[in-house]
Amino acid sequence: MKVMFLGTGAGMPAKARNVTSIALQLLEERQTIWLFDCGEATQHQILHTSIKPRKIEKIFITHLHGDHIYGLPGLISSRSFLGGSNDTVTVYGPKGVEEFVQTSLLISKSHLTYNIQFVECTDGVLFEDEQFKVIAKKLDHGIDSYGYRVVEKDLPGALLIEKLKELPIRPGPIYQKIKNGEQVMLDDGTYINGQDFLGPSQKGRIITILGDTRYTTSSVELAKNADLLIHEATFAAGDESLASDYYHSTTKQAATIAKLADVKKLLLTHISSRYQTEDEIKQLEREAKSVFFNSEIAADFIEVDIPKNRH
Amino acid sequence: MKVMFLGTGAGMPAKARNVTSIALQLLEERQTIWLFDCGEATQHQILHTSIKPRKIEKIFITHLHGDHIYGLPGLISSRSFLGGSNDTVTVYGPKGVEEFVQTSLLISKSHLTYNIQFVECTDGVLFEDEQFKVIAKKLDHGIDSYGYRVVEKDLPGALLIEKLKELPIRPGPIYQKIKNGEQVMLDDGTYINGQDFLGPSQKGRIITILGDTRYTTSSVELAKNADLLIHEATFAAGDESLASDYYHSTTKQAATIAKLADVKKLLLTHISSRYQTEDEIKQLEREAKSVFFNSEIAADFIEVDIPKNRH
Repeated sequence: MKVMFLGTGAGMPAKARNVTSIALQLLEERQTIWLFDCGEATQHQILHTSIKPRKIEKIFITHLHGDHIYGLPGLISSRSFLGGSNDTVTVYGPKGVEEFVQTSLLISKSHLTYNIQFVECTDGVLFEDEQFKVIAKKLDHGIDSYGYRVVEKDLPGALLIEKLKELPIRPGPIYQKIKNGEQVMLDDGTYINGQDFLGPSQKGRIITILGDTRYTTSSVELAKNADLLIHEATFAAGDESLASDYYHSTTKQAATIAKLADVKKLLLTHISSRYQTEDEIKQLEREAKSVFFNSEIAADFIEVDIPKNRH
Repeated sequence: MKVMFLGTGAGMPAKARNVTSIALQLLEERQTIWLFDCGEATQHQILHTSIKPRKIEKIFITHLHGDHIYGLPGLISSRSFLGGSNDTVTVYGPKGVEEFVQTSLLISKSHLTYNIQFVECTDGVLFEDEQFKVIAKKLDHGIDSYGYRVVEKDLPGALLIEKLKELPIRPGPIYQKIKNGEQVMLDDGTYINGQDFLGPSQKGRIITILGDTRYTTSSVELAKNADLLIHEATFAAGDESLASDYYHSTTKQAATIAKLADVKKLLLTHISSRYQTEDEIKQLEREAKSVFFNSEIAADFIEVDIPKNRH
């Protein structure tokens, strides 16, 4: 599980930072990629990475500002043009995403080789299967802006093969039942509990990716105990009043959310182009670190590994 | 008058060539820039040039395929964000451009600081003022695709100052009348003809920029005697059947249009990403040159000067 930043700037593209997009790479877990936001030229950024558009399974849009959605029609069309996958792509986002994409595709006469479906965002569980659960919650950005909490389900412990070999059974379908932790009857009529033949379960990871927002307690709820929190930091510390006026956050506000939520790591993105030099970026990072030490300012194309939990 | 290619690829962005956009820079003539097509990331390309978005006065869209329009919402919004000009921007194009742009702006809550107006393309004179005339004509691309003939009006000859000085008049408003070629009464009641005090007029230039198209005689009409013709060449010579199937042209077909129209220079664009190496591009150029010698394959960021005519 890795996160790749495809765009870390605010409002408009700049030479150093493109507008927002984040790829959550679940290649090991489910052979797919989930995209969070899709600013203009996200598909261009992808050309410079190893990401294959056909692997994109889900696209989560935090809010409808242009710097977060204008890359959707191009990416969606090119994914079709490139071929290779007929799997459905699901786009989650506030009301309006579907109209924007469908109007763009219709007017440009773009016909997709795969199915696309849209899920309108509301507070609560947005998606759940046996591997993952995604919880959405509205933030504070003037227009509807959502944060997403991606929860990986706990992985069952590994089968204790050596211990199993002591039982009078042969490898076969019964092993799968034991692996699932089920109760199983042996040939001699006795029962064993699968759970007794499994190592400790592996705690799933939590990644929280927030849309543009002011400082809000909703962010703390979404980020509680996350392995990684991605929060915007459009302004420097001290500009809290400006941040509030424009419905954005400062470095220190974002770091305070990370601290209150007790996350493992904070990555700051949506950096205004007013901060350009290495010194300016270092200063933003120092501000965040002064509140929450494990903070980092993201840059386009940085890749962050989210290591598996031990147990 | 210069042309800058902002994107010279076909269908999808590639590392070497972005999707279509061409900037006709009329800085000397009217302090403005006219854009022809606006594929995704045109505003990103502009970041690497000296073009100022606030100078963009008109945007001509040839047709509605995504690789020619998906950059419009971003460019139009950023032009507003950057400020500096409240002048109206006019977007010309086939029916559908307005809906695409307005839907995008509306859904993303983008409010412009300038006025934007849309003119639906039809065959004939699309725009005319004292300096320029733009003629549109439908080409052959399956969906409505237009070619644009930009005609600069002839410039009046320079005022023959030395000859004027022989007359019993003083410099003043009367000079302007003479410069306009008007008949003027002198203090002694005699008349002079302004035309007699002007050098030879300067022939205006003609630039023809065509949308995606099959080989069609409409292109010859639009390009007749042009100083510069910009024509697509999606396929290599020999692939005429393929080109026809996909409503595109080959290098030799484009060069044949240039030859029949008796243009001064041909620039080929919309180059498929199947042609990547220098050798492959040289080969495309040789094919075109074998039919029309003054042919060149465009590349992203090349700038072509269109010199003034002598008289």
